[in-house]
Amino acid sequence: MKIAVDGMGGDYSPHAVIEGCVEAVKEYEDIEIIITGPEDLISKELSKYAYNKDKITILDAREIINNNEHPVMAIRRKKNSSIYKALELVKNDEAHAVISAGSTGAFLAGATLVIGRIKGVNRPALAPIMPGKNGPFMIIDCGANAECKPINLVQFAQMGEVYFQSVLNINNPSIGLINIGSEEEKGNELTKEAHKLLKECNFNFVGNVEPREIPEGKVNVLVCDGFVGNTVLKMYEGVADTIFTTLKEEIMSSFTTKLGGVLLKPVFNKFKKDFDYKEYGGAAFLGVDGICIKAHGSSDGKAFKNAIKQAVTFYDNKIIEKIKGHIEEKMA
Amino acid sequence: MKIAVDGMGGDYSPHAVIEGCVEAVKEYEDIEIIITGPEDLISKELSKYAYNKDKITILDAREIINNNEHPVMAIRRKKNSSIYKALELVKNDEAHAVISAGSTGAFLAGATLVIGRIKGVNRPALAPIMPGKNGPFMIIDCGANAECKPINLVQFAQMGEVYFQSVLNINNPSIGLINIGSEEEKGNELTKEAHKLLKECNFNFVGNVEPREIPEGKVNVLVCDGFVGNTVLKMYEGVADTIFTTLKEEIMSSFTTKLGGVLLKPVFNKFKKDFDYKEYGGAAFLGVDGICIKAHGSSDGKAFKNAIKQAVTFYDNKIIEKIKGHIEEKMA
Repeated sequence: MKIAVDGMGGDYSPHAVIEGCVEAVKEYEDIEIIITGPEDLISKELSKYAYNKDKITILDAREIINNNEHPVMAIRRKKNSSIYKALELVKNDEAHAVISAGSTGAFLAGATLVIGRIKGVNRPALAPIMPGKNGPFMIIDCGANAECKPINLVQFAQMGEVYFQSVLNINNPSIGLINIGSEEEKGNELTKEAHKLLKECNFNFVGNVEPREIPEGKVNVLVCDGFVGNTVLKMYEGVADTIFTTLKEEIMSSFTTKLGGVLLKPVFNKFKKDFDYKEYGGAAFLGVDGICIKAHGSSDGKAFKNAIKQAVTFYDNKIIEKIKGHIEEKMA
Repeated sequence: MKIAVDGMGGDYSPHAVIEGCVEAVKEYEDIEIIITGPEDLISKELSKYAYNKDKITILDAREIINNNEHPVMAIRRKKNSSIYKALELVKNDEAHAVISAGSTGAFLAGATLVIGRIKGVNRPALAPIMPGKNGPFMIIDCGANAECKPINLVQFAQMGEVYFQSVLNINNPSIGLINIGSEEEKGNELTKEAHKLLKECNFNFVGNVEPREIPEGKVNVLVCDGFVGNTVLKMYEGVADTIFTTLKEEIMSSFTTKLGGVLLKPVFNKFKKDFDYKEYGGAAFLGVDGICIKAHGSSDGKAFKNAIKQAVTFYDNKIIEKIKGHIEEKMA
């Protein structure tokens, strides 16, 4: 399997990206990585590591797309950027998957423009796997489409279903609609209409899921528009961060609380691990005709390696082919 | 000051409501409370307490509106319900404020239908005060309007500004727009248009606030549509609850962690207090021509008493008159 990696994306690029790539080629057999970016910079960074040189090659790309650039404009103008070059490798069948920790907007716009959509999917969607109290769950869409139509949410549900069935081996995964209120008639125009459509589909639709219940992780796939999904995702991170930062400050405030903190270290560590997005790799961009993984902007080497692992799992489980088959079947 | 209280609203009514009322008349001078509900039931509950009998009267109301009833239908049909009777007291100038812990939908619909809107406010909005790391902040709207127009968000900002200036004595409070992305052009149609309008207003508009930053509480008033606001509010509660429940389970799992838990008890208690919505009373329903406070459905006596305290503060600070003046000024 060949994997294209945007060498210049993310807060800690290129070093965190390179570290993740080196760890990945050591850990996963049968993968080859092509890193895009300024050749001198990438090769200098790679020279710090010992690894099988046949496994990683560099594709020179001199431009960089920043987070504050207009995504579509940037993709159209910067065809020598590390993101564009990486996407092109998948487009030209020179790679089976592409991973970037860079500008989410540019990566998503580029994936749709350069690689293209799967036939029957109107809107590809960003679908991270989140840690829940009862197990991992997916939120789809988490920011690719700030505005959605009811039919988009049905397609999100179909793609999420394929993911849980084929990647996580969960038969008949549960599908929920994020909504403010548990009753069918609650919510805005989008959720009211989407509820009606979802109810008629032949999958395991469990109805509305209120935001309060989301962290419990009782439902496998949660569908919503990208504005709501992004809000849920960022609140999840923000509230957890605020709680732990505040607890830490309070624990450090006296001798007895410091001692308490030491005794509870295993609890906090386990908790951190259970609720760590880094364990889950990146967010899949589902609906594009190729494996696209958006790694978190703040990815360290380990998080980036896990994003690569996710691409490998997708490839091994033929997820693109399965989504295509599933969508065709539903359209028939 | 006379306060109308829906005696039958909330998960623990009537006893939590009555307890809150009794505590309130003991603590705040110059208030009289009229409790609506089945007279026999309310008076039986009241007989458990010692208090100044002149301060609390009962207005018989035999019907009850449940959470699962259609709000507007229920308000129209059940004119003898405890909620309706309480709202009517404000409408008829027999009370200066109304408080309910019952069906949010019925209370909001009833407030608009029975008491009516302030002239110039197209959509009244639910505006709870939330605990933030850097201080309390307001989210407006938190669920009264699942769909909003850009102008509604401007009016929400104006009402929030009045609240912070007159109730919390914060001069020139900061106003933020909840949005996915910090740049002006980010978001959906609503937030893009609202951003343009807010920028032109002569208040302290600080731009977009991403959900990740919300728990920090750096911005005083956060405006959004009711779907997004309700999602933020419920995620706040849900994530915090999941974290504390999980931590508690882990702490109870061994002797050393139990000991650590004992040593950290003051930390957890302080934390719980700092992040406790019960300290802040209820959520004000701003834009209605009378003081309307929605107490949390799970309010205990203390939370209900704090909701009454909030109504007193509103009255003492003449908030309705100030909103009227402010809106008229902006319309001129």
